[in-house]
Amino acid sequence: MIGISVLGISGSVGASTLKVLKNFPESFRLVSFSVHSNTKLALELMDEFHPDFVCITDEKQTGVWGDKKNGTYIVYGSAGLDEIVSLAAVDTVVTAIVGAAGALPTITAIKAKKKIAIANKETLVTFGPYINRLVKEYGVSMVPVDSEHNALFQLLEKEERNNIRAITLTASGGSFRDLPIEELPNVSIKQALNHPTWSMGPKITVDSAGLVNKGLEVIEAHFLFGFSYDQIEVVIHPESLTHGIIETTDGACLQYTSHPDMIYPVAHALFYPHKTPKLLTDRKPHSWKNLSFRSPDPNRYPALAIAFQAGRTGGAAPAIFNAANEAAVSLFLEEKIPFVQIPRIIEETLNELVITYPEDWDGFYEKDQEARSFVNKKYLKGVHA
Amino acid sequence: MIGISVLGISGSVGASTLKVLKNFPESFRLVSFSVHSNTKLALELMDEFHPDFVCITDEKQTGVWGDKKNGTYIVYGSAGLDEIVSLAAVDTVVTAIVGAAGALPTITAIKAKKKIAIANKETLVTFGPYINRLVKEYGVSMVPVDSEHNALFQLLEKEERNNIRAITLTASGGSFRDLPIEELPNVSIKQALNHPTWSMGPKITVDSAGLVNKGLEVIEAHFLFGFSYDQIEVVIHPESLTHGIIETTDGACLQYTSHPDMIYPVAHALFYPHKTPKLLTDRKPHSWKNLSFRSPDPNRYPALAIAFQAGRTGGAAPAIFNAANEAAVSLFLEEKIPFVQIPRIIEETLNELVITYPEDWDGFYEKDQEARSFVNKKYLKGVHA
Repeated sequence: MIGISVLGISGSVGASTLKVLKNFPESFRLVSFSVHSNTKLALELMDEFHPDFVCITDEKQTGVWGDKKNGTYIVYGSAGLDEIVSLAAVDTVVTAIVGAAGALPTITAIKAKKKIAIANKETLVTFGPYINRLVKEYGVSMVPVDSEHNALFQLLEKEERNNIRAITLTASGGSFRDLPIEELPNVSIKQALNHPTWSMGPKITVDSAGLVNKGLEVIEAHFLFGFSYDQIEVVIHPESLTHGIIETTDGACLQYTSHPDMIYPVAHALFYPHKTPKLLTDRKPHSWKNLSFRSPDPNRYPALAIAFQAGRTGGAAPAIFNAANEAAVSLFLEEKIPFVQIPRIIEETLNELVITYPEDWDGFYEKDQEARSFVNKKYLKGVHA
Repeated sequence: MIGISVLGISGSVGASTLKVLKNFPESFRLVSFSVHSNTKLALELMDEFHPDFVCITDEKQTGVWGDKKNGTYIVYGSAGLDEIVSLAAVDTVVTAIVGAAGALPTITAIKAKKKIAIANKETLVTFGPYINRLVKEYGVSMVPVDSEHNALFQLLEKEERNNIRAITLTASGGSFRDLPIEELPNVSIKQALNHPTWSMGPKITVDSAGLVNKGLEVIEAHFLFGFSYDQIEVVIHPESLTHGIIETTDGACLQYTSHPDMIYPVAHALFYPHKTPKLLTDRKPHSWKNLSFRSPDPNRYPALAIAFQAGRTGGAAPAIFNAANEAAVSLFLEEKIPFVQIPRIIEETLNELVITYPEDWDGFYEKDQEARSFVNKKYLKGVHA
């Protein structure tokens, strides 16, 4: 019986995690979880899974249920997150809180020597060198839940490292994949949120539309797998069936292909290092019809090259990339800037801020905050520079 | 330095083998090879590679060069083949002689405990149970050279057997893939020989056009890898870039994809169990454009179901399938029967002959000969039953 803690259970990764737990009740127990503000869902899940602890992170609801509700201990805020990941009964923590807020409890979980099923990419993008040092120091295993990284993780376990020439992340191409480029300056929020394949939250859907999300994933892949940026490729693959590809030095490519359902990577990450039991019966290659692949057009997706550049620069540059993007996406979702402004703001922020090379939390966090301030100060009033 | 013997060096597998030998002169030495009648090529290769022995198998040329030519020992016929594979300096035998004629020297090589790089599918299709018994008894390794089986061999080494749900062989679909079915009865030899992807000999090209070749490969896969016929699938994949697919029980598919060049599987088979050194630099997924997959239409390819049926029947049924096909293809290439008659003749032969369950060479060989006689007796005069 593996004890699971899920940080951010109300999102799509949380939903897939719950599906896996329901499929394998004899393998996993939901020991604890957090919600931001969705207490209705929390109550339902408490009723179904009887966790030991639940954390509510929304400050406005601090104390709403007191210390205990229906037999479950209730904790609040970031201290509560630290508490629910550290419980002795917890073996694996699923870090599905979006944004930099997911990083702190992840660090607590690493220090508590829990296995990390990482679904919060900002943790590695913003604090990569620091997190990798902690992972090594505390000897924990970190398994990616993202479909692309999980596919690559699985492929990389099958091939000797020195035989690998490159790894490729596939990208659906997002909501504006087939839009004439000249229409990009005028796209609406509604258009941006209409993702062709995956159903996800608004921030990540906007990130996908400009391949910012893929840029973050490139940086995440660098920190997870240790490949140089010259060995990481991105290919547009509209069908989202092949999730990862590794190229070996003898001229072959190994593709990991599956139905685009998060249940597969989540199940793998939860069972790892054990094999996922039988999950499906009928996913035949016949049903694939077409797998198409093409290079991303740099004119359509300028953020991708900026992400590679930030990754190569290293230090706090990825943290700045991520923070500037989070701030810019918020501005776009508040209709304060047009979509095409997002990559320009990221690039401008990277150019304006001094790139530092921190070793600890504080140094990366400082740059994250500085980037957000820079963007908000300049653009929050809707000034389109 | 690995000593190589190539049976049938003048074909396409022979040519790819020579390319590999030229690429890695420090790893391999061409100890011996055979040609059927192409003594011009033999002379050129003797000049370039200085083998110890050369065998000429065409009976009409027996003795043509005496015992020695330009410092190389010359031997003849099937006894000569047995001699050149048994040499102490030979470590690996590439069995690229087409048809059942390749089986006897393969058996000699197994008994001499040589590693077999198998490129003659009739050996396993006709004599499968017998060959597998010998392979086990003499403890030799047998590595497939066919692109599909080689891809599957490589994938199967990466996954635990009990996690595998099914293996899939890809098929280009052959020369008549896109021809309206009603035109099949009138296709010419020239049309049949116009393969869309691979450049191969006439017999195998005709086999590909009707998926008879894929049927033989399904049976070969059964004997090579031990999967039941319910676990072997065929999918039409016109681009011939993905060569093999394995489906795991946790819902994933692993694809092996590479440029359609026989140099990759040949290099792998020759280096195995060692890793192939760096062979290529620039085969990126970007360049794939499209990988399409669909189920084979049973009306277009009736031979495929017949092959599966012969495989499931077992015993000498695969031998009869192969022999009836070889006879029928010859008749087609001699313009004695139309193309669509080939699968009908195979099916008729399987229905008419008594299926036996032999354990040794003789029993399989007898059925092979009986099937050929049956077809030739009935159809050699151009009687279209």
